[in-house]
Amino acid sequence: MADCQCDDAGGLTLSPRELYDRLTEQGDQVRTLKTAKADKADIDAAIQSLLKFKLDYKRITGQDYKAGCPPSEDAVAHDNGPSEDGADTVDPWNVSTTNAKGVDYDKLIVRFGSSKIDKELVDRLEEVAGQKAHRFLRRGIFFSHRDMNLVLDAYEKNKSFYLYTGRGPSSGAMHVGHLIPFIFTKWLQDVFDIPLVIQLTDDEKYLWKDLTLEECHHYAMENAKDIIACGFDVNKTFIFSDLDYMGSSPEFYRNVVKIQKHVTFNQVKGIFGFTESDCIGKISFPAIQAAPSFSSSFPHIFQGRKDVPCLIPCAIDQDPYFRMTRDVAPRIGYTKPALLHSTFFPALQGAQTKMSASDPNSSIFLTDTPKQIKNKVNKHAFSGGKDTLEEHRKHGGNPDVDVSFMYLTFFLEDDEQLEKIRQDYTSGALLTGELKKLLIDTLQPIITEHQLKRKEVTDDMVKQFMTPRPLNF
Amino acid sequence: MADCQCDDAGGLTLSPRELYDRLTEQGDQVRTLKTAKADKADIDAAIQSLLKFKLDYKRITGQDYKAGCPPSEDAVAHDNGPSEDGADTVDPWNVSTTNAKGVDYDKLIVRFGSSKIDKELVDRLEEVAGQKAHRFLRRGIFFSHRDMNLVLDAYEKNKSFYLYTGRGPSSGAMHVGHLIPFIFTKWLQDVFDIPLVIQLTDDEKYLWKDLTLEECHHYAMENAKDIIACGFDVNKTFIFSDLDYMGSSPEFYRNVVKIQKHVTFNQVKGIFGFTESDCIGKISFPAIQAAPSFSSSFPHIFQGRKDVPCLIPCAIDQDPYFRMTRDVAPRIGYTKPALLHSTFFPALQGAQTKMSASDPNSSIFLTDTPKQIKNKVNKHAFSGGKDTLEEHRKHGGNPDVDVSFMYLTFFLEDDEQLEKIRQDYTSGALLTGELKKLLIDTLQPIITEHQLKRKEVTDDMVKQFMTPRPLNF
Repeated sequence: MADCQCDDAGGLTLSPRELYDRLTEQGDQVRTLKTAKADKADIDAAIQSLLKFKLDYKRITGQDYKAGCPPSEDAVAHDNGPSEDGADTVDPWNVSTTNAKGVDYDKLIVRFGSSKIDKELVDRLEEVAGQKAHRFLRRGIFFSHRDMNLVLDAYEKNKSFYLYTGRGPSSGAMHVGHLIPFIFTKWLQDVFDIPLVIQLTDDEKYLWKDLTLEECHHYAMENAKDIIACGFDVNKTFIFSDLDYMGSSPEFYRNVVKIQKHVTFNQVKGIFGFTESDCIGKISFPAIQAAPSFSSSFPHIFQGRKDVPCLIPCAIDQDPYFRMTRDVAPRIGYTKPALLHSTFFPALQGAQTKMSASDPNSSIFLTDTPKQIKNKVNKHAFSGGKDTLEEHRKHGGNPDVDVSFMYLTFFLEDDEQLEKIRQDYTSGALLTGELKKLLIDTLQPIITEHQLKRKEVTDDMVKQFMTPRPLNF
Repeated sequence: MADCQCDDAGGLTLSPRELYDRLTEQGDQVRTLKTAKADKADIDAAIQSLLKFKLDYKRITGQDYKAGCPPSEDAVAHDNGPSEDGADTVDPWNVSTTNAKGVDYDKLIVRFGSSKIDKELVDRLEEVAGQKAHRFLRRGIFFSHRDMNLVLDAYEKNKSFYLYTGRGPSSGAMHVGHLIPFIFTKWLQDVFDIPLVIQLTDDEKYLWKDLTLEECHHYAMENAKDIIACGFDVNKTFIFSDLDYMGSSPEFYRNVVKIQKHVTFNQVKGIFGFTESDCIGKISFPAIQAAPSFSSSFPHIFQGRKDVPCLIPCAIDQDPYFRMTRDVAPRIGYTKPALLHSTFFPALQGAQTKMSASDPNSSIFLTDTPKQIKNKVNKHAFSGGKDTLEEHRKHGGNPDVDVSFMYLTFFLEDDEQLEKIRQDYTSGALLTGELKKLLIDTLQPIITEHQLKRKEVTDDMVKQFMTPRPLNF
């Protein structure tokens, strides 16, 4: 799917008036196609674009589009804080929906202006990678992208790229949901044999939370151990704390300042919902999360090369940062980063919200014992089963809202087994208790293995990963 | 003069409502004193405070104070951009007045809430320093301060402090006006035998001007040579470019983030007049100029000591940065910096504005030849003399608006000679041409000597001054 002009929606490029004009134009086009009895597929595509523009228009002006009524002068381009679409809220600090199946990701693709990871792209990835796609791709857990085709085009012409992902270290304890981007990034690193940078935004957590700098930095170092335990190759991976790296790389700071010069308060207000009461640290922080998207931020890795493309695997709630980054990139002479977006890992209580590190019962922590895992799943995992055994046997359960089943889609490797579980649960052959046991049996060895690997991570290894140095790739 | 509660005016500490209440209270006090027929001095002091509160109120709410009418809810605390007082505009980016004598500095002291450097303080400085006060102090060129008495109290108890000053490198060419803070800071360093840090805000210039990062950094290095040529002791002086030092000191960045967490957009809007259209780099920059006020920003100099007090000699237009800094300091556990404020060095065309590096005829540059100096003074220096020789001999000239005379107050060391020139010019005995010749004869050797010293400054010396390292003091 080619990028349209509105690829990076968010009030950055189009004014309300320009958007209004685009909308009117698109409406005309739909009518023309219908009158001309064009192909159904073409008409549908034109209508989808029209709907997308209408959503953008509503978000940016706060008004519904009305043909013949241009936006009023005071409809300043802004977002009124975090975007909302129906009942879904998705921004870097909040994810919630009233739908038990979770966020409507198809709507999110339209709203964010990204592209769906369709079968064609998964097939192409398999072909380029020379191996079966990761289960996260096969199952739509990584469901959306920006410019992934460009990255693959370049890779096929022997032009390399690098990976960038990150984590905000708000506590020392990580839960299984936090592993998703790292598990997938490790797969990408192995498949493509490319360098990876991992940003720990301890400065962000200091600015947003009631924590000291020392606490945030400590959490960064603790989280680094869990990340390393995912099996990254030290020869290809650089992990950094913002608090440390900003103070040890003039090139990184130069990129931060470049970005800060090209983004206004109005823009971050529109994208992130910042207000005038927010501290100036929050307001300028997005530039710090943007800067690792440019290879010149890492001269020790890329020897000053400014044109190595970047691919960012991350949860979709981080996309606002990179919409901003992609808007700024061409204006400072850099390549736009490509993105792969994942869905959220649901809380045990249900897919209405993502896991939270602050509520111990909403999550399976990487430090939980097998017994704790068993108890949490049995006690808290929201069930899509029926109230009584008889009813369940008769009508079957609903895997679409069942958290145990959702977790299995994340962690059970065998596609056939997963499909069988889905069918059996839907038919009523598989009971909720049995489904939960399957999840417990899947999670326990994964967490135990993670704990063993984490124990092997020494302070020296952390230091090695976190030292700016050349990488081998 | 003791600090009042409003020492650090600027909308940071008092809300419009609180200020309204203070004003009402102060009005009551004036009436009480008058009714009680109190001492005239006491009544006058109370009235002065009242006027100051009224000015603050107008600046912060945009409304005139009216007894019985509290500020409306929508009178958010802000400054409507740069403060204005009558016709004077003084902020870090603009200095202008319609008065040929220059800015009304007494009013500025009231508006900024600083304290006048009175004879008592100059005497005390001489006593502590053990030598005659610098001509800039004797002649009121450094005219205002904050907490200088606290610095001297501590110094007398053998508690040391350090100096911090800086420059925004917007071009490679500096003019004589730029030397004022450095000449004075060198004198302070010699007298007190203390460390000095000099910040070159190349990042600021990149954010504000249409310049590349490389240009700003290059100007910083060029300006460093002119600064070193002022004779600073390399064993006691650390000069740094923000673009370099931010990327080489995690401690400096940590202090920047600490400050950024404790200042809101509303505050920088009130203090600096930033708007929502300003880039996020400008909005967060004040924290970078604030951070060198805290000794923990320089662990190589102070070995991690966080409590070494800081004294900042600077032109009064930089005060807004340090009002903000002083407001933040106690909230992050640091000592407020003390300040010594200088007047502006007038443009050749008159004291309505300060010299500008962008207009070559407004300034005597440090690169000007003796002939250029002669021509510029003769051609452009605004004269306070009469139109004809006869009238001048009869009525005399006005040294208060005469730029040549003003420049002599900055650069002629001999007090008696300066006073004689003033008298002779006022009486008409000294003609404008003769006065200009006296200035030319004073400036030419100063600039020539500066050029000779600058030539001796090697790249190695610049590197030495700019390397983070321990200092001897």
